[in-house]
Amino acid sequence: MNVASKLKELGLTLPEPPRPVATYLPAVRSGNLLFVSGQLPFVDGKLQKVGKLGGNFTLEEGQAAAQRAALNALAIINQAAGLENVAQVVRLTVYIASATGFTDHPRVANGASELLIHVFGEPGRHARSAIGAAELPLGAPVEVELVVELKA
Amino acid sequence: MNVASKLKELGLTLPEPPRPVATYLPAVRSGNLLFVSGQLPFVDGKLQKVGKLGGNFTLEEGQAAAQRAALNALAIINQAAGLENVAQVVRLTVYIASATGFTDHPRVANGASELLIHVFGEPGRHARSAIGAAELPLGAPVEVELVVELKA
Amino acid sequence: MNVASKLKELGLTLPEPPRPVATYLPAVRSGNLLFVSGQLPFVDGKLQKVGKLGGNFTLEEGQAAAQRAALNALAIINQAAGLENVAQVVRLTVYIASATGFTDHPRVANGASELLIHVFGEPGRHARSAIGAAELPLGAPVEVELVVELKA
Repeated sequence: MNVASKLKELGLTLPEPPRPVATYLPAVRSGNLLFVSGQLPFVDGKLQKVGKLGGNFTLEEGQAAAQRAALNALAIINQAAGLENVAQVVRLTVYIASATGFTDHPRVANGASELLIHVFGEPGRHARSAIGAAELPLGAPVEVELVVELKA
Repeated sequence: MNVASKLKELGLTLPEPPRPVATYLPAVRSGNLLFVSGQLPFVDGKLQKVGKLGGNFTLEEGQAAAQRAALNALAIINQAAGLENVAQVVRLTVYIASATGFTDHPRVANGASELLIHVFGEPGRHARSAIGAAELPLGAPVEVELVVELKA
Repeated sequence: MNVASKLKELGLTLPEPPRPVATYLPAVRSGNLLFVSGQLPFVDGKLQKVGKLGGNFTLEEGQAAAQRAALNALAIINQAAGLENVAQVVRLTVYIASATGFTDHPRVANGASELLIHVFGEPGRHARSAIGAAELPLGAPVEVELVVELKA
């Protein structure tokens, strides 16, 4: 697997791993599982736009935000364990800041799912939950949480 | 354990496992843990009613929806690993679409908890979180997420 | 590690572990992981105040509620496995009942994070997600969910 070339196919490069916005860790390993902290769609440490799906975010913008948050999660996995050591993406949870009446969460979450599958191939397929949040930290439209299994 | 007869006592039968509404997997195993994707109360691939607790859903309808989503999770576990191979239900998370002021989440979540305990007996007892979501995928009133431990 | 003295430095003592508000378990162990049920900021079995951040809760009150819910989680870990057997805090999820426009979740969640780090030191550092919920059980402002790794 060559993650860099897989990302390049999408016009993406692995960013610097975002620093936690408080006193916690970017990721913690227990056994073969790596638990990644909830990631926001930071670009260079900033949210490019704040708000909600069903409000001031279009579906396409929400998908791009989900992809970006997942890309940040990849940067953290790479820093913590090396992306080449991922055996399987286990669980993806996508929290989506939702204005009243917005129910198209699966398509927003696909922005994260499709990146993971593109990068890792079959081991990138994962169990998933998509949830509509009332608000998310710092006004982010999307927060992505990951559990991956590392090679033994 | 005879799951079919336990379900029959409640007037239930194991449905076809719902297909994911996007590109993810119904469940992923890592070690002895099986992570099940968030399940909606689909019946034959459709939500019978959309909306929220504290809105157009009564408590009883919410409990039935939680039971149904848990039943769908059982169908997925059965497909992925066989229900007879469940050693312990580990964690249940019940997300409940909540209109402002609705705070009776534990009783809604009991619709899922009680099904699991009825079906599995003591190993069906689980750690649980119940959360009020702003919105859920496709307008579902409830989404159920499960982690179970499989026999080694 | 002397948890009692660490808590005393903060003016805290370990409470009686709260009983689940329904039929589930306070915590379930699977392998070396202990999954703790979502904890509310109960004091002597009661919520001292109900409501939301960005509504009738100040930031400081929210932080205190997050600390209290985490303290209750510690009481449950102690009962289930003994706090001296915690090898690593793995994942903390803090759900925060959020009025429209409240986005300061990380600082609220720090009330829980800082307690864990104070009590356990370096092994208390954890992966974290902070999420804005529409409503939480019984009107609680905060719900805290924990996964910890126990010594083998």
